Amino acid sequence: MIAVLALAPLGAIAAPSVSRLTPPSELFSSGRPEPVIARFLPGQRFDLQATLRPDAGRSLRAARFLLDGKPVAGNVTLRDCASGCATGVPANAVIASLRAFSVAATGRHEFSIEAEQDDGQTLSARGNFDVIPFNTPQGKPVKNVIILLGDGMGAAQRTAARIVKNGYAQGKAIAPLAMDTFPATALVKTSSLNSVVTDSSPGMTSYVLGNKNNNNEEGVFPDDTTDAFDNPRIEYLSEYLHRTQGKALGIVTTADVFDATPAGNAVHTSNRGAGTGIVDQFFDDRGATGLTVLMGGGRKWFLPSATPGSARGDKTDYVFDAADPHRAEIAKRWGISPGALDKDRDLIKDFQGAGFQYAASKTELDAAKGGKLLGLFSLSNMNVALDKIDGRRGKKQGLTGSVVDDYGFPDQPMLDEMAEKALSTLARQTQGFVLMIEGASIDKQAHNMDTERWMLDTIEFDRTVQVAQDFARDRGDTLVIVTADHECSGAALIGASRVTDAVLQQLGKAGGSANLRDKVVGVYEQAGFPKYRIAADGYPETTDIDFRLLVAYGANADRYEDWRSNPQPVKDSQQPLVKAEPLKWYPENPAERDGLGNYLITGQVPGESAVHTATDVPLSAFGPGAFSFVGVIDNTDVFFKLAQAAVKGPVAPADMTVKAKGKR
Amino acid sequence: MIAVLALAPLGAIAAPSVSRLTPPSELFSSGRPEPVIARFLPGQRFDLQATLRPDAGRSLRAARFLLDGKPVAGNVTLRDCASGCATGVPANAVIASLRAFSVAATGRHEFSIEAEQDDGQTLSARGNFDVIPFNTPQGKPVKNVIILLGDGMGAAQRTAARIVKNGYAQGKAIAPLAMDTFPATALVKTSSLNSVVTDSSPGMTSYVLGNKNNNNEEGVFPDDTTDAFDNPRIEYLSEYLHRTQGKALGIVTTADVFDATPAGNAVHTSNRGAGTGIVDQFFDDRGATGLTVLMGGGRKWFLPSATPGSARGDKTDYVFDAADPHRAEIAKRWGISPGALDKDRDLIKDFQGAGFQYAASKTELDAAKGGKLLGLFSLSNMNVALDKIDGRRGKKQGLTGSVVDDYGFPDQPMLDEMAEKALSTLARQTQGFVLMIEGASIDKQAHNMDTERWMLDTIEFDRTVQVAQDFARDRGDTLVIVTADHECSGAALIGASRVTDAVLQQLGKAGGSANLRDKVVGVYEQAGFPKYRIAADGYPETTDIDFRLLVAYGANADRYEDWRSNPQPVKDSQQPLVKAEPLKWYPENPAERDGLGNYLITGQVPGESAVHTATDVPLSAFGPGAFSFVGVIDNTDVFFKLAQAAVKGPVAPADMTVKAKGKR
Repeated sequence: MIAVLALAPLGAIAAPSVSRLTPPSELFSSGRPEPVIARFLPGQRFDLQATLRPDAGRSLRAARFLLDGKPVAGNVTLRDCASGCATGVPANAVIASLRAFSVAATGRHEFSIEAEQDDGQTLSARGNFDVIPFNTPQGKPVKNVIILLGDGMGAAQRTAARIVKNGYAQGKAIAPLAMDTFPATALVKTSSLNSVVTDSSPGMTSYVLGNKNNNNEEGVFPDDTTDAFDNPRIEYLSEYLHRTQGKALGIVTTADVFDATPAGNAVHTSNRGAGTGIVDQFFDDRGATGLTVLMGGGRKWFLPSATPGSARGDKTDYVFDAADPHRAEIAKRWGISPGALDKDRDLIKDFQGAGFQYAASKTELDAAKGGKLLGLFSLSNMNVALDKIDGRRGKKQGLTGSVVDDYGFPDQPMLDEMAEKALSTLARQTQGFVLMIEGASIDKQAHNMDTERWMLDTIEFDRTVQVAQDFARDRGDTLVIVTADHECSGAALIGASRVTDAVLQQLGKAGGSANLRDKVVGVYEQAGFPKYRIAADGYPETTDIDFRLLVAYGANADRYEDWRSNPQPVKDSQQPLVKAEPLKWYPENPAERDGLGNYLITGQVPGESAVHTATDVPLSAFGPGAFSFVGVIDNTDVFFKLAQAAVKGPVAPADMTVKAKGKR
Repeated sequence: MIAVLALAPLGAIAAPSVSRLTPPSELFSSGRPEPVIARFLPGQRFDLQATLRPDAGRSLRAARFLLDGKPVAGNVTLRDCASGCATGVPANAVIASLRAFSVAATGRHEFSIEAEQDDGQTLSARGNFDVIPFNTPQGKPVKNVIILLGDGMGAAQRTAARIVKNGYAQGKAIAPLAMDTFPATALVKTSSLNSVVTDSSPGMTSYVLGNKNNNNEEGVFPDDTTDAFDNPRIEYLSEYLHRTQGKALGIVTTADVFDATPAGNAVHTSNRGAGTGIVDQFFDDRGATGLTVLMGGGRKWFLPSATPGSARGDKTDYVFDAADPHRAEIAKRWGISPGALDKDRDLIKDFQGAGFQYAASKTELDAAKGGKLLGLFSLSNMNVALDKIDGRRGKKQGLTGSVVDDYGFPDQPMLDEMAEKALSTLARQTQGFVLMIEGASIDKQAHNMDTERWMLDTIEFDRTVQVAQDFARDRGDTLVIVTADHECSGAALIGASRVTDAVLQQLGKAGGSANLRDKVVGVYEQAGFPKYRIAADGYPETTDIDFRLLVAYGANADRYEDWRSNPQPVKDSQQPLVKAEPLKWYPENPAERDGLGNYLITGQVPGESAVHTATDVPLSAFGPGAFSFVGVIDNTDVFFKLAQAAVKGPVAPADMTVKAKGKR
C-alpha cells in the first residue's frame, strides 16, 4: 500500500532519524483538541513537503498539494530516494516538494497531499497549521529589533553574574545588571521539535521562525534526505522583515559565525556542522536576508582551502543547479544564488566585492566606517572575555607564566565593542534592522564547567546589553529582548568558599573531598556575600578572591574540581604548544585538568562535557512592545511578539512601559 | 571608649553571629550612595534597638532614640548582657530597645541612638530607612491576597512538573500548568540578610515583611541576645492588614506548621527551631495577626508534654512577664499575650476554646463548617503527595510489599483539598484575608534528591494553584501570586532515560556508571518527550515509566542513583519498623539508599542533603495588580506590591490584566 512517511510543515511523521517523535495519530486521538504544530505569519513563506512510498515495483505518477481542499498552484518537484535518503527510508520513496508557499488568510488551515501510483492507486494525508493574525496595535511599529542571546544563560548564570559584577550587601544587590533593569520578564519554554532538551540550533531558530526545528537543524523542517541543504525551508524573521519592509540584518557573536546561533538567523540547513555551505549561504542569501553586518570568529571558513588555516571543503557545501530540479527549485522560488561547490572560494573577497568593509582585528573594527561590515577576528571561536581581558591587562598567566596570545589573535574586540559598531553601522538603515547579538561562550564555558570563564562572559554579555539598552533608550523606536536559547550545565550557585585563596591552595595540595569539599564549600549563611573588586575595565581584578562564589553543576560530566580559576587552556589546534614536563599547556577537558587535587566529581551524564538542560529560561524586554513579553511562553511565541511589534506595533498600553521604566 | 555594636533596623552591625555581614562603614564609603537597608510601609511597626558597650567598669546612664534629629517618644528598655548574650558580646554590653515604633511620613528617615555613660561620656550612632509611599491607584484595592509558596521551586522544578503532568509533543507542552496561565511573571532575587543563599525563613518573610531577615530568623532583625523571642520585631503583612483593615490570616502547609515558611507569616523569633514557642505564638498573637485558618502537620507541638507523641518543652518556649521589663515591653507594646513556659499546655483545646474547629483528618476536614479552623493531620510533616496518593490507591509498595500507612495517619488531605476548605472558610471574612499556602515538600524532597517525590509534590502544588486561581477568577477581587522562597538542590533536567524500565532494572543489577549512566542517560535528542500517563486522580499512574524524565543535582551531597522511584522511606521516629534482612524498611539517606546499583555520585556539597542555591526564582501573578509583578525584583519588593494592591489598589492599567488574560 502506498504510504505517506513524512509531511511538512507538520514535521517528519515517521522519519527514522527523529527519535520517538509523537505520531499525529497519537496526538489526534484521546479526545484532545487537534494540536497545531506549525504557525506562520500572514504571508510568511515555507515549503510544503511529503515523503511518499509507492508499493514495491511501482512508481509515483503524480502528487499535488491542496490547501483547505483546493489545489495549490506551483511546481511540485519529485525527488527519488535512490539519490540519497536517510537510513531506513525505502529506496523507492519519493520526496514531493512545493517551495516558498505562503498563506495570507489568518486562521486554521488544513493542507493535504494527494498522490497517485502508476497503477492508479491513490492516497492522501493531511496536516494543519495556523496563520496568526496581527493584533490591533496600540502604538506605531518599532523600527528596530535587537535580540540579545546569552547562549546557555539560565537564571543561575544571570544571578552569578550579578553577584560577581555588582556585589551584594545586607541581602541586596548593590546594583542591578543592565538586563535586570528591563521592565518586562517572561519565562520561556525551550524544547525543540524532537526533544525536551534543545541544542542551540532550534533554541535560536524558534525565536525567529515561529516554528520548532529538530536539534542540529536551522530554519527548516526535518526531511528524509541526507542532503543538508534541501530541507523544507521556513522564512526567518530577518527574511520576512527584509522582504516586506526592507529591514537589514545584523549578526554579531563571539563564536565562529558558522555556529548554530548566528546561522540560526539566516541559514537553512539540517546540519549545523556544514560550515562551508553555512558561510556561503550567509553571502548567497544576503538578498533574501538583508545581511548587512556579520561579526565574530570563524575566518577559517572564509579562506580558500589552500590558504593555511582554511577549513573549507566541498563536502559541506551546496549547489542548487539545474541538473537537479528538486534543488534548483529552492534557488528559483526563494530568489537566492544557486551557489557552487567551491572550496577555493575567497569569501572575504566576495563580501568586499559586495560592498562590505572587512575588519580582521579590533583596530580595524574601530577604523571601519562603511555601511556594511564583515568582521572575522579569529580562525574559529573568539577568545573568551577572561582571556581577552587578561591579554589587554598584559597579565602573566597560565602554567607557562606568559600571556598566551589569544590563539594567535591578540587584538580581538569585546562583544560590547562589536555591538557598538554594529549599531552605529545599522543605524543608517532607513527601514530599520533586526540585530542578533550572541554571548556564545556563556554556553561553551558552561559545557566545560569552567566557572570563571562563563561568569566573565556573562558580564561581557551584560555590558553588551547595556550598549543595546542605551541605543534603544535614546531612540525610542527599538525593541530589545534579552534571553537564552536554553540553560547549560545545570549550574547551581551552592554558596561561597569558607576560606581564603591561600588556604584554598593549601587544601588543594592536601586534596580529596575531605579537604576540597568539606573544608571549602560554605552553604547557607556560611556563604555570606562574595566580594569581587571590579577594575576600571569592568571586570574583576582577579577571580581568585578569598571567600569566592562557588558554582557546582547538575548536568555534569566527570570532572576534577579545585575551585580555582583555570589557566587558559589549549583549544582546537590553533595553539602550537606541546604537552611536556613541566606542563607548558593546560588541558581543557574537565576530567584531565585540576587532577592534582584528586577531588573527582562523578558525572551525572556521559561524555566529557556538561550538557544542556530542559529548564525554562528567563527573558527580559525593553522598549515599545516590551510588555507583550510576560507570563510563561513558548520560545516560538517570541517570534510572533517580535513580528507584531515590528509590523503593527505594540499591543500593551504604551504608558505602562513608561511607568514601569520610571519605577526602576 | 563606649561603642555601638549593633543597631536595628540597620541589621546587626557587628554581631559575632553574623558572618561577614558588611559593616556600614564599607557600604557608606567608596563614593557609593548611602544604601537603604530597611524599608517600611507608612505606619508599619518595627522595633528600634541598639547594642551598647560601656567602658570596662562603667555602666550606662541613659539611652534615647531620635528620628530625624528629634527624640522619639516611648519607653526605652535597657537589658544587661550578663543575662544572656551571644558569644563574643561583652558581658557589660546593654541592649536598648524601643518597641512597636512606626513612621507615617514617607521618604528617607535617619534615626539615631544617643547613649550616656555614668562618667558623662556620650556616644551616638545612626542608621536610616525609607518609608515607601503608596502609588496612585488605578483600580480599587483587592480584598484578598493569596500567596502560593512552592518551597524550593525554581524554574527547573516548574518545568519538570509540566513535563510529567501534561506532557510535551512536537516540542510544545500539550497543556500548561495552572501557574503557567498566570499572565504576569517576575524574576525574584532571594538572598537573605546574611547570605546570598537563603534558608526558608527569610525566603518567606522577605515577601511579607518588606525587609530581610538573617537565615533561621523570622519576623525580626538580628540581635545580640541568646533569647529566641526578644529580637526587634517587624510587623508582618498579615499584622499590618489585620490592624489597619481587619483582614484575616490563613496559613496552610504540608509541613509541620511550626516550620519556617508557615511560621514566617505570623511568628517572630530568631530560632526557627523553637517549636513550642512558635506554635504558642500562633495562638497568643492571633489578635495581632488575625489568624483564622491554620492547617498542616505538627500536632506534636500542640499536645501536652505527657501525651505520647508530644514534642513540647519549656526550653523552646517564651514568657514576656513583668519580671523582665525588656521582654514585658514586647507584649505590652505589640498588644499580644505574654505567654508562659507551659509544656503541659493543651494547645488544641486552647484553639477550640477560642472558637476554632479542629480537624485531625481529611474526613474531619471535609465535615468542618466553622468560621475558624485548625487542622493538624500528622505529628510532624505531612506525607508527600506520592505516598498519600499511593495510600489512596491502596497500592502495594515499598520493600515490605505493603502500604505503609502514612506514618500512622492514613487519612491525610491533599494540599488542594486543604486549600479549598481554607478558601471557603476565609471567604466569609467581610474585610478579606491574606492566605499563604505552602507546597513544603517540593523543598524537602529536593533536599533528599528524591526526584519523583518532589515532582509529584509540585503537581499537587499546581493543583492547589488551580484552586486559588478558580477562586480569584470567579470573584475578581483577589490577587494571587505563585512563587518560591529559593531554589533547592540545583535540580537539572538532563534528559530522559534511553531504556525501558525493565532494562533500567537490569542495568541497575549490572551496576556502576558504565551501566547506570552511560547506557541510561539520554541527552539532547536522545531524550525525546517522556510520556507519563495521568490517572483520574490527577497523578501519574506510575512514575516508573519507560524512557522516564531524568533529573540530576548540582547542589548535591553524596548519593547513589538508580533513577527509579524510591519506596516510602522511614522518616523521623514515627515509623516503628526495624532494619532487618530482608530489608523491611527503606533508608531515606541518599548515600544509603540505591546502593545496590553501585553508582555513587560524588557530592559537590558536604553533608547528607542537597542544599539551597542562590539562583533567582520565577514568580507568577494573577488578578488585579498582577502586572506590578514584572521585571527582576527583590523578594522584599513583593511585600510593597502586595500591600499596594491591598491598600490602595493596582497601579497597572486594569485593562492590561484583562487583555493578557484573554490571550492565554
